[in-house]
Amino acid sequence: MIKIGICGYGNLGRGVLAAIKNSKDMELVKIFTRRDPKTVKIEIEGDYVASIDDILSYQDKIDVMILCGGSRTDLPEQTPYLAKYFNVVDSFDTHANIPTHFKNVDENAKNSGHIGLISTGWDPGMFSLNRAIMEAILPVGNDYTFWGKGVSQGHSDAIRRIEGVLDARQYTIPKDEAINSVRNGENPTLTTRQKHLRECFVVAKEGYDLDKIESQIKNMPNYFSDYDTIVHFISMEELTKNHSKLPHGGFVIRSGKTGLNLENNHVIEYSLKLDSNPEFTGSVLVSYARAIYRLHKEGNKGAMTVFDIAPKYLSTLSYEELLKHTL
Amino acid sequence: MIKIGICGYGNLGRGVLAAIKNSKDMELVKIFTRRDPKTVKIEIEGDYVASIDDILSYQDKIDVMILCGGSRTDLPEQTPYLAKYFNVVDSFDTHANIPTHFKNVDENAKNSGHIGLISTGWDPGMFSLNRAIMEAILPVGNDYTFWGKGVSQGHSDAIRRIEGVLDARQYTIPKDEAINSVRNGENPTLTTRQKHLRECFVVAKEGYDLDKIESQIKNMPNYFSDYDTIVHFISMEELTKNHSKLPHGGFVIRSGKTGLNLENNHVIEYSLKLDSNPEFTGSVLVSYARAIYRLHKEGNKGAMTVFDIAPKYLSTLSYEELLKHTL
Repeated sequence: MIKIGICGYGNLGRGVLAAIKNSKDMELVKIFTRRDPKTVKIEIEGDYVASIDDILSYQDKIDVMILCGGSRTDLPEQTPYLAKYFNVVDSFDTHANIPTHFKNVDENAKNSGHIGLISTGWDPGMFSLNRAIMEAILPVGNDYTFWGKGVSQGHSDAIRRIEGVLDARQYTIPKDEAINSVRNGENPTLTTRQKHLRECFVVAKEGYDLDKIESQIKNMPNYFSDYDTIVHFISMEELTKNHSKLPHGGFVIRSGKTGLNLENNHVIEYSLKLDSNPEFTGSVLVSYARAIYRLHKEGNKGAMTVFDIAPKYLSTLSYEELLKHTL
Repeated sequence: MIKIGICGYGNLGRGVLAAIKNSKDMELVKIFTRRDPKTVKIEIEGDYVASIDDILSYQDKIDVMILCGGSRTDLPEQTPYLAKYFNVVDSFDTHANIPTHFKNVDENAKNSGHIGLISTGWDPGMFSLNRAIMEAILPVGNDYTFWGKGVSQGHSDAIRRIEGVLDARQYTIPKDEAINSVRNGENPTLTTRQKHLRECFVVAKEGYDLDKIESQIKNMPNYFSDYDTIVHFISMEELTKNHSKLPHGGFVIRSGKTGLNLENNHVIEYSLKLDSNPEFTGSVLVSYARAIYRLHKEGNKGAMTVFDIAPKYLSTLSYEELLKHTL
């Protein structure tokens, strides 16, 4: 059994816990939290919650630590630090800062003899892996990534920060017209507005001007101003009833040409339709924890990403079974 | 530049040639044929065709030999034999014999210090890689593979062997109803007949009984008797005009559950829509040739499959570029 620690227990931590329970070769050792462990309720029986202050005393008891904090402030600190003491996996998703994060983790992981696999999940993660392989196979072509339909927590948070907003949920929706054009091999040049639509469900506080809130949302730079945005005002009951799940998904599509005169077109498409974004992301993290456990046993160290991992390391099947049943 | 040899020059060999021409880091050294080299016309300028009898004299001039023979008689002999002298890649696709083929190649490749990567292309190949990763991420679930719409050369050949048939083209067509059920997460149990339809375009010789030919096709064991089969009799002109391309494609879909009570469903889908089956397969072979060239330089040897190859080895991008642009 591969012994797993979970550092941070929000939506993603709960997703990782469920994925461990559904994996035959994994066992949970401990969940580490910044909160008082006594106040943290978990969904399984047993004494599994400890303070993050005690994390280093578990060095010999944990094979891989899965980091479930946020990309803005938690992971830039935690992943390099914990790579000094554990094999670690994270889902760091601030694309622009990935090279720096990789370098910070690499240095500490190499010095301590551990592996730190960063930025896995679905994007970055599965989508990145597919983008890399698609481009390798069809070098003459373009790839397109669409997100949704799904809840963007960052955009939901941005709406909540507007004065007069009690709660909100924002769905990112890819536009069918754009997807179909890509699928048909038309290699379109698409603007931000042409690719995705943003639909917002907002609960307003009493007495606030709804038109003003709507206008503030639609004109918010970076988040909404470059998109077609639809705003619905609903009651708190309706939000709780119809918008409390965290579905997501998306598409990576590459359209490319082959032939001595580039006369043939091909379309490769990878898509995800997820009922629960954090549970799927947690499942990906757990598979990569398996991979780095094995690669560490083989003597590897340093920072890694999905680009470094051969598929056999992710699978619970033996190589013989893979040859016989999966190839 | 990675120096490539092509062994066997049919449809697949031509697809590999085009893929080499579209790859910036590859150059063709020689095409080896069993025919008299003078009789083999190729689509590029230059002295590129040699007899297969001279292949061993190219040991120092070729980094990777891409084998483009058939799986029935060529590859079971050629891949193990040539692995004694070259790094080799093949598209061996007789699923039941893959473990034996792997073993034969492994022994010779290990002894000679080469790598022999077998059974790549799209199925086996890209579909296998996706099946393995999907199952690792969603262990509680089912995967489904659908082929088509596309030309099955094996089924077309089977029709041509019927007395009174001049030529034929068979399309394998996945049934929308089955695909939609899988996409909706219904986890159906599907019979052979429920998954695919077979549509045949047949040119009959004059004076033969068309009803008899149609009945012989529809009742042919293994090939057609388990399927709904549609037969159209057409003229040779129509066959040449409308059915001379080799399109293909298909879908791998995994539907799986997560959550402590398996309460959430997820659907992962990988699909291909290919104008030219041999050119796409050739493009995959060339990417894997790049990978084993690099892995051989790192000191690896023996038989491999897509399960052994980390994505970074397939890509022409540097690791820094992958982190920056692709992750």
